[in-house]
Amino acid sequence: MDGQGSVQRIGFRNDYSEGAHPRLLQALAQASTEQNAGYGLDRHSARAAQLIRQACAQAQADVHLLVGGTQVNLTAIAAFLRPHQAAIAVDSGHIATHETGAIELTGHKVLTVAAVDGKLSPAQLQPLIDLHASEHMVQPRLVYVSQSTELGTLYSRAELQALSAFCRARGLLLYLDGARLGAALTAEGNDLSLADIAALTDAFYIGGTKNGALLGEALVIVNPALQPDFRHLIKQRGAMLAKGMVLGVQFTALFEDGLFLELAAHANRMALRLRDGLAAAGAQFIVESPTNQQFLALPANMVEALERNYDFQRWHVRADGWIVIRLATSWATRIEHVDALCRDFAALADALSGASG
Amino acid sequence: MDGQGSVQRIGFRNDYSEGAHPRLLQALAQASTEQNAGYGLDRHSARAAQLIRQACAQAQADVHLLVGGTQVNLTAIAAFLRPHQAAIAVDSGHIATHETGAIELTGHKVLTVAAVDGKLSPAQLQPLIDLHASEHMVQPRLVYVSQSTELGTLYSRAELQALSAFCRARGLLLYLDGARLGAALTAEGNDLSLADIAALTDAFYIGGTKNGALLGEALVIVNPALQPDFRHLIKQRGAMLAKGMVLGVQFTALFEDGLFLELAAHANRMALRLRDGLAAAGAQFIVESPTNQQFLALPANMVEALERNYDFQRWHVRADGWIVIRLATSWATRIEHVDALCRDFAALADALSGASG
Amino acid sequence: MDGQGSVQRIGFRNDYSEGAHPRLLQALAQASTEQNAGYGLDRHSARAAQLIRQACAQAQADVHLLVGGTQVNLTAIAAFLRPHQAAIAVDSGHIATHETGAIELTGHKVLTVAAVDGKLSPAQLQPLIDLHASEHMVQPRLVYVSQSTELGTLYSRAELQALSAFCRARGLLLYLDGARLGAALTAEGNDLSLADIAALTDAFYIGGTKNGALLGEALVIVNPALQPDFRHLIKQRGAMLAKGMVLGVQFTALFEDGLFLELAAHANRMALRLRDGLAAAGAQFIVESPTNQQFLALPANMVEALERNYDFQRWHVRADGWIVIRLATSWATRIEHVDALCRDFAALADALSGASG
Amino acid sequence: MDGQGSVQRIGFRNDYSEGAHPRLLQALAQASTEQNAGYGLDRHSARAAQLIRQACAQAQADVHLLVGGTQVNLTAIAAFLRPHQAAIAVDSGHIATHETGAIELTGHKVLTVAAVDGKLSPAQLQPLIDLHASEHMVQPRLVYVSQSTELGTLYSRAELQALSAFCRARGLLLYLDGARLGAALTAEGNDLSLADIAALTDAFYIGGTKNGALLGEALVIVNPALQPDFRHLIKQRGAMLAKGMVLGVQFTALFEDGLFLELAAHANRMALRLRDGLAAAGAQFIVESPTNQQFLALPANMVEALERNYDFQRWHVRADGWIVIRLATSWATRIEHVDALCRDFAALADALSGASG
Repeated sequence: MDGQGSVQRIGFRNDYSEGAHPRLLQALAQASTEQNAGYGLDRHSARAAQLIRQACAQAQADVHLLVGGTQVNLTAIAAFLRPHQAAIAVDSGHIATHETGAIELTGHKVLTVAAVDGKLSPAQLQPLIDLHASEHMVQPRLVYVSQSTELGTLYSRAELQALSAFCRARGLLLYLDGARLGAALTAEGNDLSLADIAALTDAFYIGGTKNGALLGEALVIVNPALQPDFRHLIKQRGAMLAKGMVLGVQFTALFEDGLFLELAAHANRMALRLRDGLAAAGAQFIVESPTNQQFLALPANMVEALERNYDFQRWHVRADGWIVIRLATSWATRIEHVDALCRDFAALADALSGASG
Repeated sequence: MDGQGSVQRIGFRNDYSEGAHPRLLQALAQASTEQNAGYGLDRHSARAAQLIRQACAQAQADVHLLVGGTQVNLTAIAAFLRPHQAAIAVDSGHIATHETGAIELTGHKVLTVAAVDGKLSPAQLQPLIDLHASEHMVQPRLVYVSQSTELGTLYSRAELQALSAFCRARGLLLYLDGARLGAALTAEGNDLSLADIAALTDAFYIGGTKNGALLGEALVIVNPALQPDFRHLIKQRGAMLAKGMVLGVQFTALFEDGLFLELAAHANRMALRLRDGLAAAGAQFIVESPTNQQFLALPANMVEALERNYDFQRWHVRADGWIVIRLATSWATRIEHVDALCRDFAALADALSGASG
Repeated sequence: MDGQGSVQRIGFRNDYSEGAHPRLLQALAQASTEQNAGYGLDRHSARAAQLIRQACAQAQADVHLLVGGTQVNLTAIAAFLRPHQAAIAVDSGHIATHETGAIELTGHKVLTVAAVDGKLSPAQLQPLIDLHASEHMVQPRLVYVSQSTELGTLYSRAELQALSAFCRARGLLLYLDGARLGAALTAEGNDLSLADIAALTDAFYIGGTKNGALLGEALVIVNPALQPDFRHLIKQRGAMLAKGMVLGVQFTALFEDGLFLELAAHANRMALRLRDGLAAAGAQFIVESPTNQQFLALPANMVEALERNYDFQRWHVRADGWIVIRLATSWATRIEHVDALCRDFAALADALSGASG
Repeated sequence: MDGQGSVQRIGFRNDYSEGAHPRLLQALAQASTEQNAGYGLDRHSARAAQLIRQACAQAQADVHLLVGGTQVNLTAIAAFLRPHQAAIAVDSGHIATHETGAIELTGHKVLTVAAVDGKLSPAQLQPLIDLHASEHMVQPRLVYVSQSTELGTLYSRAELQALSAFCRARGLLLYLDGARLGAALTAEGNDLSLADIAALTDAFYIGGTKNGALLGEALVIVNPALQPDFRHLIKQRGAMLAKGMVLGVQFTALFEDGLFLELAAHANRMALRLRDGLAAAGAQFIVESPTNQQFLALPANMVEALERNYDFQRWHVRADGWIVIRLATSWATRIEHVDALCRDFAALADALSGASG
């Protein structure tokens, strides 16, 4: 029995364990009976792009539907940079850590700054840029942020505005990884709309894979200077689907009547219910996250005990020996599973505290 | 209304206009309700790999499920070559022409030889290898062939054996692009089994996209020296699906009870019926193809007349002004559409010959 | 005894067998006693750049001194192209054949057209460009020509003007490899000045290695759009010399009082004397070259006989079994060696014709 | 008048301000009158390689002569790694900072650990390796160290043995950047011979540029698995000199009678004399260096005062506002200049301390 995805255990491992929402599957079944143009030139992809442009309030933006997050990141960043230019990310940024060096494979260094709650700020960027003033060093050119971040946190409107203004003043591009943008847009306290994000960045993508699609991410290129020939670049990275309608159909279903936000809101609600339940039982969260990823630190025996019935990810081991775990909810998370985990957690906490008491 | 994929016209444009076969869609709907491990480590992907290993009679082969053909080609070829090494293909080979330089983007030259009916032979390879003996030239290392070829033709067992023996004697890798391998395996006159192909090549892939799947290609790495760390290489090319089960489910459905061959056989039957019908009406085929792609040369006015009711691809314009078109059938092609085209073609041929007579 | 560079034989193998002209060596010895700024920021490099800008009549051009031809080609072409763009060259072009895939290593395909006397023309470019109109194919963007060509021939002013006009009309860059530009500028019949070449191209380089320097090529970037950050690109390709003055000193010596043209003119004079002498003895040249490379076809026994006392390059074997050889002269070729070869050739031709008669 | 390399000021800016030692220049002048085989296949390059193999006590090592340090590093590291593999260096390592992302341009991430006196240790490597166990992360494969380090410090024999043993036990390659290997080999307290270094590493290079040559670095590939086809890789990086004898002649002159060590020893003697003189005047060195680079922290007004008559590099500004400067000596540094700096430094220190007292 593998430790991942076992059906016996209740899963909070990630937000891509389940497949697609039924409405997307129905739409795919319907479209499968049609003949559609290939390579994303079909009417579903055109309609999805149009819906997304409207949602972003960017009539001139280019929208490209790609398959996955790493693929979008490497295709876009490599397209936007000249050979000597680098991306900047927080040290916990996805491109800096968990993409097997995909950006470097395209020839570009990823410069990192220490994350504060998963985020970066102009104050951190300035010294890095000052340091890289020589032709013997890479030239910082693109700032990469994630929304929500890899820690589930959010940039506020003020924070993203400050980053955007800083980047524009210094000739830097601002690129936003929205693998979990749905979770961000629907989080408690979020004050950034899709239109805000489009207005403040040069390009960003809207994640479908982690929000109810079988696969698919919608890249929005707002800056016209970054738009030319982008389909060539998609094709040569192996990122252009022959049956591009597979993506167009799903994004149309997600965006034509609010399903995208609805699914994300559900995941967030489940996460907050989980957070509140666990906090009530004494859980220590390492960061305050209003979205569908929750990180908490637990003693090792508590982690082992929980793993008997629940599947989740061990994130890292802290210096004090406690283990940081991630609990992720998704569009498909069931409330009874959340409540079961809260109950079992509380019972275990009691038992273990009694044992050590 | 765009010229491609218009629903009013009957489509023979390609073999990826329709979506997935209903059994694959049902399986996806079923699996969408489960929780599965991510990144292709799910039980469906494991089962698909096992079925494919069995079909190939290669218990030790590695099977990786990827999204599309260009993606497989670039990931595999870049993984197999050192920086100074080149691939060899026919000039009509997909990697040499229609992948926007994807192989070159990974740093490798694609050397070409003139195709004979879409194929290459040891006799063509030897001079190319002789020519590239110096360290001032790239080092040929991998021979790329397609089965069926880009012209719909087939390598016979004797031809593939000769190529394989040649490659092994000279330290060359033999890689087979099987985007249309189903069509090849089920073609009239084919004498190569999947097991033969696996035994004669170092690696190859089995195309799902062009044979009833929404997307998906199964790369089979037979040569153990090419297997290590391949999942790292998939990930860093952006070719690893978070919901890898999407591929596993479809390939399981295709391979667990013969659907893969059944769909391909249908496409071939439709193509041969079309070929025979058109030939009876005087059509001139530029190459004898036993598979689902048929190429014929027509006067321009005939092409224009046909395009009113049928959608197909103009391939190129011949020196004499005639246009070579491709008619492609698929797993979803309907017999009444084939017959309608044959009828209309015959009528048009009569009318035009009468007009010019 | 190796076949290359043996001191006993008289060498016509290439134009880089000898080291540097004594005036360059003296200048290097003098500059070696100074302290100079590093990385090409020294006063010698500045002076060389200024002399070259003057010679080109291009006050705003950027001049960069690099080490060798392949290095210049790959650094420049990779700097000038976006990832999906390709260079176009004749099939005998240096980047297409003898640089071990250096351009492809930077990610770019080299498209080729069949050379006519080593050259290409707008008439050849147009169909190639027409063919590459789709996003499934690379996008032609830079036209690469060599002057003198790999066969020793020259583009005339009318030919280069036609190419330049064609490129500008179609948004193509024109790049000229001047590894042997000295030979071209001083050839009989040449009607292109350095200023003409600068005015007609976007960038080109002036070869020092093959014209009296130990090493060194001067890249002239005329098109301002191609100039930004080029020193970053030099550095990251490993092409920036710590002691950049080594190049600056040599190019200053070559350009401050006409030595560059003087040396090239000598090489050409020796080549034409050789050509005329051999022609008088019945030699068959495969192309009419007014520069320091002469190609002739000889029976194999004649080649073997000549190789006893002379060192030269076997270029290829013709279909009729005759061997095409290249005889190259250089700034250091001695007239008595030329005359010796002519004499011996005539004697051998007599002897062999007598033997066969 | 530029701020760098001005002849009026006495230079301690770096160890590549002066050109070549006269004996190398004489040898180049002599060899320039010969005809030599091209591309490093000449007798001088063969002789240099033989001398270096002997000095390393590695009869089977491959020795390749290249032009510069960044070029060697990128050519070697890219040759040794598969696409998903990474190099590890200290954060002050040359490849991590001052090569404009040259390693990343070849597709490989450079992982960094915090340097301790410019060095790294097995204790730092282990956690980095543990962290990179997943296929979602790059695979550490090559450990890069510099000797002497970028801070002028040295690995001891025990330290290099420990690193070597660690690397071999874990399948890591050990690569040593010897841009300043001469300085290391001749330093007070050094206990590592060239043969030791060869025995403990997989490959390393011996710097000529920073020790009396016009240009040139000798790459020694000890590990036979890394040797095949390396000349192809040199060529395709644009790193193969047509007149390869330029390198062969210089390395022969450096290694045939001990000149290499003699020059380095001189640079070190000058550095220690400078260090001792400045220390006597109260200078604070930020690290104890026994080699030709000395780093000291000074108040800004002291730096400005010194810059009137001396040229050196400002390294960085410390948090307390003091400026760290580097003083470098070379094979050509004159004792009277060292003594002048010591005298003037002491006088300035007195004056400024008087002023502030």
